[in-house]
Amino acid sequence: MKYCSNCAGPLSVAVPDDDNLPRHICDGCGTIHYLNPKIVTGCLPVYEDKVLLCKRAIEPRLGYWTLPAGYMENAESTTEGALRETREEANAEVTISHLYTLTSIVHVNQVQMLYLAELDKPEFSASSESLEVRLFREDEIPWDELAFTTIRNALQFYFEDRQKGTFPLREVILRGN
Amino acid sequence: MKYCSNCAGPLSVAVPDDDNLPRHICDGCGTIHYLNPKIVTGCLPVYEDKVLLCKRAIEPRLGYWTLPAGYMENAESTTEGALRETREEANAEVTISHLYTLTSIVHVNQVQMLYLAELDKPEFSASSESLEVRLFREDEIPWDELAFTTIRNALQFYFEDRQKGTFPLREVILRGN
Repeated sequence: MKYCSNCAGPLSVAVPDDDNLPRHICDGCGTIHYLNPKIVTGCLPVYEDKVLLCKRAIEPRLGYWTLPAGYMENAESTTEGALRETREEANAEVTISHLYTLTSIVHVNQVQMLYLAELDKPEFSASSESLEVRLFREDEIPWDELAFTTIRNALQFYFEDRQKGTFPLREVILRGN
Repeated sequence: MKYCSNCAGPLSVAVPDDDNLPRHICDGCGTIHYLNPKIVTGCLPVYEDKVLLCKRAIEPRLGYWTLPAGYMENAESTTEGALRETREEANAEVTISHLYTLTSIVHVNQVQMLYLAELDKPEFSASSESLEVRLFREDEIPWDELAFTTIRNALQFYFEDRQKGTFPLREVILRGN
C-alpha cells in the first residue's frame, strides 16, 4: 500500500493521535487506511459415512485436496458465503448444521470458519476452481495431499468427534507453518 | 476507492475474467482491489451476577452503553483481539470461556464475535474510549440506552441462557436497522 485510494497522494506509516498502532496515512487528504484480517468461510460437507473434498484447480496448492471454502464477500453472511463457496467449488448443495471450526491464522491475517454441513444429495462435480470433487471414507482420506493445515485439522476433529457423536466448536490459533 | 494503492492509477469497476463479481481494477497496473467484511471481536464480561458495560466515549453512539469490542487487528487471533479491546475500553482483565455470539451484520459488512468471559477481579475503569465502566445486575441493564442491536441481543441471550445454565453459540444474521 503506497498511495491513497481516495486522492492518489503518497502514504506515510505513522501512529495516529488517538491510536496505538502504526497505520497508512495519506500525506495529502489525511485519510487513514486500516488493514484488517479477512474471513475465509466454507463447509465440511458430509454424506452418509463420507466427506466431500475438492482438488484445487488454482494456486496456491494447486492439485491438493481441500474443503470448499473461500473469502467471504461483502453483503453476505458467513453461512451464505459458506454455501456459495460450496456451490462454486463443488457444484453441491448442502444444509448447514453449525459452526464447527474457527481458526485464527495469525501469520496471514485470516480467520477461517468451517461449518459442518450435510450434502443434500450425492450430486457434485468439478468446476473452474476444482479439478475433481469426490466423497472420501475415513480410510480413503489423502492425508499427504491435503492443501492446508486447517483442512487437516478439521478432518481430524471430524473423525475424532464422530466416534463420540458430538461436534463441538473447535477453536484453533495458528502462527506459522 | 478511486485510485490504485499500488501505482496511484485510476480504478475502474468491472468483473475480472475468472470472477463473477464486480471489483475495483487498476487501469494502469491491473491490480484487483478486493473489499471484504471486517471482524469486530469482544467480550461479554461477567462478574458474579453482573455484566460489565462501557459507556461509549466515541462516535458512533457516543454516550450509549456497549460491551467491550472493536475491530480485529492484523497479527492477532480473535481471542487476543477480544482481550485487547476489553483492556483498552474497560481497563479490565478477563478469562475467556468460549465464543458466544456470532453476528453477520450484512448491511455494514461486519462480522461480530463476542466471547463469554469472566472478569478476573472487580477492577475496571473509564478510558479514552469509555466515559464510564460499570457492572450491571439484570434488573439494572439500561435497555433503552444500549449502543447496538448486537449488544442488546447478546445481553438478552445471556440472561435467557443463565436461567438454563448453558450458553450455546448464538448465530445471528442482521440485515439493516
